[in-house]
Amino acid sequence: MQIYLDNAATSYPKPVAVADSVYNFMINNGTTSGRGSYKKAMESDRLIYETRKLIADLFNFNNTKKVIFTSNVTESLNLAINGILNEGDHVVTSSIEHNAVWRCLKTLERDKGISITKVKASKEGYTNPEDVEKSIRENTKLIIFTHASNVLGTIQPIREIGKIAKNHNIPFLVDAAQTAGAYPIDIQKDNINLLAFTGHKSLLGPMGTGGLVVNWDKNIQPLKAGGTGGDSAYEYQPDYYPNRLETGTLNVSGLVGLRESIKFINKESIETIHNKEKELVKYALNKLDKIDGLKIYGPKDSEKIVSVISFNIKDLRPEDVGFELDNKYSIMVRAGLHCAPNAHELIGTKATGCVRIGIGYFNKKEDIDILANSLIEIIKTYEI
Amino acid sequence: MQIYLDNAATSYPKPVAVADSVYNFMINNGTTSGRGSYKKAMESDRLIYETRKLIADLFNFNNTKKVIFTSNVTESLNLAINGILNEGDHVVTSSIEHNAVWRCLKTLERDKGISITKVKASKEGYTNPEDVEKSIRENTKLIIFTHASNVLGTIQPIREIGKIAKNHNIPFLVDAAQTAGAYPIDIQKDNINLLAFTGHKSLLGPMGTGGLVVNWDKNIQPLKAGGTGGDSAYEYQPDYYPNRLETGTLNVSGLVGLRESIKFINKESIETIHNKEKELVKYALNKLDKIDGLKIYGPKDSEKIVSVISFNIKDLRPEDVGFELDNKYSIMVRAGLHCAPNAHELIGTKATGCVRIGIGYFNKKEDIDILANSLIEIIKTYEI
Repeated sequence: MQIYLDNAATSYPKPVAVADSVYNFMINNGTTSGRGSYKKAMESDRLIYETRKLIADLFNFNNTKKVIFTSNVTESLNLAINGILNEGDHVVTSSIEHNAVWRCLKTLERDKGISITKVKASKEGYTNPEDVEKSIRENTKLIIFTHASNVLGTIQPIREIGKIAKNHNIPFLVDAAQTAGAYPIDIQKDNINLLAFTGHKSLLGPMGTGGLVVNWDKNIQPLKAGGTGGDSAYEYQPDYYPNRLETGTLNVSGLVGLRESIKFINKESIETIHNKEKELVKYALNKLDKIDGLKIYGPKDSEKIVSVISFNIKDLRPEDVGFELDNKYSIMVRAGLHCAPNAHELIGTKATGCVRIGIGYFNKKEDIDILANSLIEIIKTYEI
Repeated sequence: MQIYLDNAATSYPKPVAVADSVYNFMINNGTTSGRGSYKKAMESDRLIYETRKLIADLFNFNNTKKVIFTSNVTESLNLAINGILNEGDHVVTSSIEHNAVWRCLKTLERDKGISITKVKASKEGYTNPEDVEKSIRENTKLIIFTHASNVLGTIQPIREIGKIAKNHNIPFLVDAAQTAGAYPIDIQKDNINLLAFTGHKSLLGPMGTGGLVVNWDKNIQPLKAGGTGGDSAYEYQPDYYPNRLETGTLNVSGLVGLRESIKFINKESIETIHNKEKELVKYALNKLDKIDGLKIYGPKDSEKIVSVISFNIKDLRPEDVGFELDNKYSIMVRAGLHCAPNAHELIGTKATGCVRIGIGYFNKKEDIDILANSLIEIIKTYEI
């Protein structure tokens, strides 16, 4: 039996209907969207519109046209960050951001002279909203927070941070890579202006899909220019959404799969998914915490984290633990820095990294039992 | 019976093995590439490597690592253009470029003060290489040509233009959107430095795939920054390929489909595909040219064009022709400006657009017969 515990990288398995819908679209339709005007192309348009609508509804957003599709959450974050920040601007962000945010900001700091304030989180990865407010300057043009750390799992107080951003009239960008689909997000109540999401993690859709929800009226400079299927004689990107920020042929077959996965999520309900994952996390925290020599990073509280648990075992190299788990026990986890050196700096593992498990909706308690037993055996072997 | 003649937008059908491989990957593997180190993730790595290798071999390129994957050819072109051109630079391009090139350049002209020379093509869409050479200035930093117009089909003398670029030590970027997979391309002999391709047209792969082949040693600034699955502690994009220009989770399931489609192309051989399409084009040109009142744009010579034929009928609106063809005869074509206003300006159809058929490898002479008869019927109805 194979046990997949790398759902924070990508979810697996997906609902079978997702692959089915991708296959059926490729075989039976296969046309682009937003370009042709024959019936089959209009069916593609309808499928894409429905996907936008499902995304909008999922996040309680009422402007379907401002759901922008991208190839992944990294592109969504690049689009928002590069589209908003200009020379001399200041940005406030967390100390646990993924490189999808951090490298963007560092590049703009180097090339455009923006300045960055990294708000220090607690050892457990929690940011105090008051510290965010204190970091705001006159030239602060964007506040960016991950919704939940991809290393520690720690859920950030985005509603409170969003409130502060709103009061100061600064746009608030949230990286929902680890939450969208498994944690309730309400773009209105959570005071989010820009929500970057990926399709292939907790939204259970195909790779090659993601997006940016634009709940903001000011201008965002497009990251790319090109064909939009309309207003072709105009020599720049059009001003209206989604075309302004979407260019080139969309990944229609992938988005058709995303449409199906969101329908699955809606059928199960975000609450059911969230509660099941929370229960598994609680169970896992309890099991892992009892293993002698195993150190868990981040809050040991399933109410405070998404379904990501990072740990190290004594002085075992995380890569070796990962290798043994896969090789001997067919358990798939992720060892290393998880593209988030800032979070590792916070917990003192920047040099070594750690082992991360990512629990998904389709995992079972039995998977956790087998993981825990395997880790105990690995420790024993190591001690001999 | 439905007849699909919009292959210049996206090819349909694809070889069944393409959808099969996407489905099988999603169901049986589903992991990301370049991140995990467990066996299943390494299987993804292998599939991605093989796809890169197949692309490299197809274009006679020997550096697999410098095959960069993107979400579509528009992104590839944006990456190359924005990654090379700086303030004050001059660029030489054709007068028949797609908006994927043209809007990029106009945006850089507006925002970064680059200057553009558009080399005038003949009425048939052919560019004289000598005119390209005459347009080169001291500050010319890039020469960009479409390999074949997506409106007129006209194949450009890219080998000769590439030679000129080489002699002047200027990088040469080719937009192979309409040729890759259906026309032989040899990156060495054709003197191409940067080859932008899409996966879902003549390469017969899934939407959401494309790339840039980088046969050039100078620096290209990344379009996006983010996680690359390695060197995570480094705060900028790494310097080595493909990671420098590739960020975020790849569309692995899509690329697995592309791998399968290139294997199909290799099995059939580019020559076979090219010859079959050429024969169909010759047949179609002959049939369409005999229709009274139908005006074909571009060269009426299957040796000079790829499998795209654009036309108008008397003073009928192209949209109406497209609608009638779909509605009454289930024939899918594209009416409008095809995201390429420059080409339409050249042939005097910028205000009205035209009807375009895109012939694919899976079309038959019978499809052309039915199209021609349907057009004759439409004309008759219109004349009554």
